[in-house]
Amino acid sequence: MIEQSLYSTVIADDLKTFTASVFKAIGCNITDAELAADVLIKADMRGIDSHGVARLTGYVRLYENKRINTQPNIRIVREKGSVFTVDGDSGLGLVVAPKTMQIAIDKTDIHGAGFGAVCNSNHFGIAAYHAMMALEKNYIGMAMTNASPLVAPTYSKERMLGTNPICYAIPAKKYPPFILDMATSAAANGKLEIAERQNKPVPEGWLETKNGNVTNDPKDLKDGGHLLPLGSDKDHGSHKGYGLGALVDILSGVLPGANFGPWVPPFVAFLPVLENLPGKGLGHFVGAMDVSGFDDVDVFLDRMDLWIDRFKSATPVNDQQKVLIHGEPEYWTEISRQIKGIPIIDKVSADLITLAEKYKIEHPF
Amino acid sequence: MIEQSLYSTVIADDLKTFTASVFKAIGCNITDAELAADVLIKADMRGIDSHGVARLTGYVRLYENKRINTQPNIRIVREKGSVFTVDGDSGLGLVVAPKTMQIAIDKTDIHGAGFGAVCNSNHFGIAAYHAMMALEKNYIGMAMTNASPLVAPTYSKERMLGTNPICYAIPAKKYPPFILDMATSAAANGKLEIAERQNKPVPEGWLETKNGNVTNDPKDLKDGGHLLPLGSDKDHGSHKGYGLGALVDILSGVLPGANFGPWVPPFVAFLPVLENLPGKGLGHFVGAMDVSGFDDVDVFLDRMDLWIDRFKSATPVNDQQKVLIHGEPEYWTEISRQIKGIPIIDKVSADLITLAEKYKIEHPF
Repeated sequence: MIEQSLYSTVIADDLKTFTASVFKAIGCNITDAELAADVLIKADMRGIDSHGVARLTGYVRLYENKRINTQPNIRIVREKGSVFTVDGDSGLGLVVAPKTMQIAIDKTDIHGAGFGAVCNSNHFGIAAYHAMMALEKNYIGMAMTNASPLVAPTYSKERMLGTNPICYAIPAKKYPPFILDMATSAAANGKLEIAERQNKPVPEGWLETKNGNVTNDPKDLKDGGHLLPLGSDKDHGSHKGYGLGALVDILSGVLPGANFGPWVPPFVAFLPVLENLPGKGLGHFVGAMDVSGFDDVDVFLDRMDLWIDRFKSATPVNDQQKVLIHGEPEYWTEISRQIKGIPIIDKVSADLITLAEKYKIEHPF
Repeated sequence: MIEQSLYSTVIADDLKTFTASVFKAIGCNITDAELAADVLIKADMRGIDSHGVARLTGYVRLYENKRINTQPNIRIVREKGSVFTVDGDSGLGLVVAPKTMQIAIDKTDIHGAGFGAVCNSNHFGIAAYHAMMALEKNYIGMAMTNASPLVAPTYSKERMLGTNPICYAIPAKKYPPFILDMATSAAANGKLEIAERQNKPVPEGWLETKNGNVTNDPKDLKDGGHLLPLGSDKDHGSHKGYGLGALVDILSGVLPGANFGPWVPPFVAFLPVLENLPGKGLGHFVGAMDVSGFDDVDVFLDRMDLWIDRFKSATPVNDQQKVLIHGEPEYWTEISRQIKGIPIIDKVSADLITLAEKYKIEHPF
């Protein structure tokens, strides 16, 4: 979503070339640089602007603070048949996660399913990129990650969980795939940042003050407040959102030996990493399942189309707004931006121009 | 939760013997009858009274309406390594689901993971029973099921999804296991039924009228209204609850060839089953993963204890209410009811006495 009219439009391939050049400049080999750039640009293509090139300077700052190893030895440290753990060697999550997903897909070829937990990684961009890798083979893909703490559990005012997203990607035939990619908090942090910049109140149920009181003011988050889990309050099921965030934290963090809960290292480089951490870096959990292990693929894809047909035609409350299928709006955004280019707000392009000058890289802005 | 003081207390083993006798009376063999009884009584033991013996007469009515086959040929109809589909042959979900979970566990022994989708089944009781079967081997277990439609997607006023629960069971060492077992609706149907019997309003955000309007009146559900997904409204993330319910419907229904969406057959026997159904019965999705495929089991269990320790000590909003860990309240209820017996409200025991007389079975009430 573009909140301001002050933006320029950049062709996707040019943005990707520039982004890969930045990753090469900080030490990635060409393959890794292009992979990391592909993950970031995919977010911009799909309209998830908060997770695209807007974060490139953030990754570079992590590198400059020696928190990212741009030449990691990413390796399986444990496995049994279809399941395994990868140590990301402090690599970019943008590289570690898709490489782990590729291993999961390879295991799915053999075992019908593959699930990999990852420790010693960093932020991996949009979960959908990794889950969607499974779609090329008509597999079902999934991806989740823990993240630095912003969300307080039900009954608590302490930041204990990240916005810990869950993504599932499921193929269809005549329709775009079903892509559920959701933070387990009531609202994503990016939505609060937009409201804060615009000096607008947010709905009750998105965040609380540092004392655990109700607030509409997005600034209360930076003043020591916390986000609320999906469900917002106990009456509306916040214990479920807390439970989903906890599940992501356990599978991504506790299972592979990454950090978890309040110990997950921050994405922003200016915040200190805590001492005496219980694990290594942050963690992900990704996997795939082969549809052909359950039924004929073609028969399944027809059923998915029927499922989507039926849900698209569910009786709307208001005829102007039909029921949406998860992943479809992002699919159409991607097609549009492939043709029209990617809008980049001036604040982001200014940051990227500074970065380009620092690393002596040509830029498309 | 006991809403009324009018109840009697029954010893768990007596309740289980009685329940198994009922299942035997309608044609189950001894093994299946005892398994089905174990699933139902486990719900009562854990305090999920809505899913225990209170539903026994419902299952019998389904049998009497020829919608349950008490001598099913439950079999794998498709498999590839760790994944498979089971046809439940219209058997009791209380039997089909744990038998499928046992196959998933056996596959986990070999492949590190096992995931089974099920078609042609019926309601399977509490999801936690099946997921928790994995804990005996220190595996991670999961279970989900679709259910007859009550929930409208975001932007719709049509019942399209069941309350479609998701359960994960994860072992710990000194603490009870982490058990997340949640409906993907804002509130479970049982909570509305209690409010309706007590003639009390419910919070906004649990349900809407048949026209898609906000309401506090639980009676609006029976008047053609619908439950809301977790998140309640778009501002608070109802598209996420809708997405989770959809995910459960796709994995449990679309994947194995069961019915899905509005076609899922109703649990209550007096409602007609629709014609021209796209699938067989209703569906489940269950699975397990071997922790030892990710790390040393003992090391993982210690980390789970640390995770639980840290979350239990998260700063509370109010010192009188500490942060809860999913599954712990139910664990303590189970220990208490093992000692003190299970409270059965008079309305339920009256129904069960009628059932006992009809089938000439001794009863403990």
